[in-house]
Amino acid sequence: MKICQVEKTLVATARIGELGNKRLLVVQERGSTSKQVAVDPVGCKPGDWVIVCGSSAARDAAGSKEYPSDFTIVGIIDYWEDDAAAEGAH
Amino acid sequence: MKICQVEKTLVATARIGELGNKRLLVVQERGSTSKQVAVDPVGCKPGDWVIVCGSSAARDAAGSKEYPSDFTIVGIIDYWEDDAAAEGAH
Amino acid sequence: MKICQVEKTLVATARIGELGNKRLLVVQERGSTSKQVAVDPVGCKPGDWVIVCGSSAARDAAGSKEYPSDFTIVGIIDYWEDDAAAEGAH
Amino acid sequence: MKICQVEKTLVATARIGELGNKRLLVVQERGSTSKQVAVDPVGCKPGDWVIVCGSSAARDAAGSKEYPSDFTIVGIIDYWEDDAAAEGAH
Amino acid sequence: MKICQVEKTLVATARIGELGNKRLLVVQERGSTSKQVAVDPVGCKPGDWVIVCGSSAARDAAGSKEYPSDFTIVGIIDYWEDDAAAEGAH
Repeated sequence: MKICQVEKTLVATARIGELGNKRLLVVQERGSTSKQVAVDPVGCKPGDWVIVCGSSAARDAAGSKEYPSDFTIVGIIDYWEDDAAAEGAH
Repeated sequence: MKICQVEKTLVATARIGELGNKRLLVVQERGSTSKQVAVDPVGCKPGDWVIVCGSSAARDAAGSKEYPSDFTIVGIIDYWEDDAAAEGAH
Repeated sequence: MKICQVEKTLVATARIGELGNKRLLVVQERGSTSKQVAVDPVGCKPGDWVIVCGSSAARDAAGSKEYPSDFTIVGIIDYWEDDAAAEGAH
Repeated sequence: MKICQVEKTLVATARIGELGNKRLLVVQERGSTSKQVAVDPVGCKPGDWVIVCGSSAARDAAGSKEYPSDFTIVGIIDYWEDDAAAEGAH
Repeated sequence: MKICQVEKTLVATARIGELGNKRLLVVQERGSTSKQVAVDPVGCKPGDWVIVCGSSAARDAAGSKEYPSDFTIVGIIDYWEDDAAAEGAH
């Protein structure tokens, strides 16, 4: 699973029906400028460090085998002191 | 899911039968020069910022468990102010 | 799906039985020096720009749910003017 | 499967119920500064070099087809002399 | 599928039961310093250039739908003249 930081909620009104009205968050992977969209069944707030699961497991984690997610938050990390910024300077 | 911008429609006349006549779009992932091909069940236009789902979820999102897609658009982002170009300059 | 250019046929006599005698091609992803091996159920020739599907969808695309492929060509692009070489120069 | 080194246990109290109370470890892939979270059904200690399995196989490896893991430790390497630091200097 | 070169056998005595006693090899992907672990049902020797399959297909290729592999060798390339070292110099 990836270690990501929550940035903000993403609004996408035009969407396929299977997505339903689950909450979508923009998250940034640790040590990267890459941003992705994750389904949030946990209830996160901006700034939280979270564990995000991909692959087919992201579907069950979002609530059902049929749910169209490839990236779902499965937990909030209690405490994370990030060292990626320092590493990124190399 | 990935954040991508729609570039244009892709024409591929010679294709396997399972692809059917679904619309294929060239999309570019945010902050990258990498271009991929996504199935579009939503109805996007060039310039739209979209959420694209991969993995096995891309198949159901395209309409059925048997559909041969590994990258399917699942929603159009209402508003996206991209900051990747600036970040890419570092 | 990825946008790749076909380079040549790949010969691999010692293989697992499940691969059968399907044609394997060396393909190069657009804008990358990375080469991969793709199953070709379409009938491509060297130089063709093709759409290649990964993940579990690559299996059905190659002919059956049991086929051991993670990269299968699903269509030939009618016309592709590549701009990756220019981008790569940045 | 990836070759990773175990760093430490990760505590995430707020989590989806499907994760259960399995042990989660922060691991670092060989030759990379990228850190990921892996489920540990083997019983590893910090510093161990381990084999980590992704994709849908990570689920069965963690104990069941329904478990929401995309990265599960499947074995501890008996002896690993790492040469990535040297390679990374190029 | 990826094009890799076999480096050596990997010994991992402590492992999950599902891995069984199948042979695990360290392989290096063409044009990369990244090393991964692949299951070998073909019978390769160090130095061989091989085709390695990932995703869920790696499981069937290793012998069964339940086998916990995400990277399995499916064939040995008859002849491979590598040009990656030269490309890497750019």
